[in-house]
Amino acid sequence: MDQKFNYAEHKFNLFELRVNEHTGTHMDAPLHFSADGKSVAEIPVDNLIVPLAVVDIREKASANADAQVTPDDLKAWVAANGPIPKNACVAMNSGWDAHVATPKFRNADDKKVMHFPGFHVEAAQMLIEDGNAAGIAVDTLSLDHGPSPDFATHYGWLPTGRWGLECVANLGAMPAKGATLIVGAPKIRGGTGGPSRVLALT
Amino acid sequence: MDQKFNYAEHKFNLFELRVNEHTGTHMDAPLHFSADGKSVAEIPVDNLIVPLAVVDIREKASANADAQVTPDDLKAWVAANGPIPKNACVAMNSGWDAHVATPKFRNADDKKVMHFPGFHVEAAQMLIEDGNAAGIAVDTLSLDHGPSPDFATHYGWLPTGRWGLECVANLGAMPAKGATLIVGAPKIRGGTGGPSRVLALT
Repeated sequence: MDQKFNYAEHKFNLFELRVNEHTGTHMDAPLHFSADGKSVAEIPVDNLIVPLAVVDIREKASANADAQVTPDDLKAWVAANGPIPKNACVAMNSGWDAHVATPKFRNADDKKVMHFPGFHVEAAQMLIEDGNAAGIAVDTLSLDHGPSPDFATHYGWLPTGRWGLECVANLGAMPAKGATLIVGAPKIRGGTGGPSRVLALT
Repeated sequence: MDQKFNYAEHKFNLFELRVNEHTGTHMDAPLHFSADGKSVAEIPVDNLIVPLAVVDIREKASANADAQVTPDDLKAWVAANGPIPKNACVAMNSGWDAHVATPKFRNADDKKVMHFPGFHVEAAQMLIEDGNAAGIAVDTLSLDHGPSPDFATHYGWLPTGRWGLECVANLGAMPAKGATLIVGAPKIRGGTGGPSRVLALT
């Protein structure tokens, strides 16, 4: 942030912002991992106010930082809560938001490989086949778990026209099913994503 | 926007954004026009999902580009719709969003004085005395109308801890009363405002 005007001198405050699109709680639009997918401005509003499905993997994530949402986790969610709702956001609650703004959030090892939970590409593929989800969300830095060498989930999911949300917080306060997620994604022409104000109504 | 990675070369797309906080559809936080008011990150969520009250001044704005929302306009709204709802956003619909991205939006004259509608400071003061509004919104570039020499409405309204929204679009599609406005203001620590995704549910 670069302060262009300050109250003491100019009688108002104003900053210029300089930010990577993929900072903080943010949207990954299809264009992020495709040659010509939808930009963040092109995502229909109907896909930004959506049912929230929360998949709780906190137990296995606390035992294994590299844990992933798997097809079995999705099957367990469906068994308990019914079909994935139309246009849903399927969110991973790994409990990792507790580590935000600490080194544990990236959790890099001596070889600079990161260790945090994410979506397994097979879970993403299962949601693509199911056809109902508009997006997925993670409470970590990446749709793919930390040690991913190939961003398989990014490449499997985003080019299908669906979106991802990264660094989402407070999923632990949400029910497994029944909340409505409001994704305040920025309407930036040609943007590959961007910092988003994400709210939920229960 | 500065493209840092491109799909052809890097197999993904990513931009860095550089933007004045007060660009596009955006929030003015109290800190914008006060020494130590609330930053955009400090506005309570309860004041971001709020009842929308739309004050239609299209007729007088089409006759006079410098038209303002006056206390009489607010009295007429209350007479037709009842009291200003608790935590409401009171929005000026001047029809000016039709001019966005054209010279008419700023509508500068030969002396570089701009001409577009805004809130009269007396209307802002009436809402402050009433006590129910959390924010005001305009479909123009500024809470104050174009020729304002002193930003009286900014200085009267924002330091009371209330917010403003500028460059809001599509208010003509909203009822005078009954819609819920969702203000996806960016949660930027210390920010004086910022580009906001603004949605409404009717």
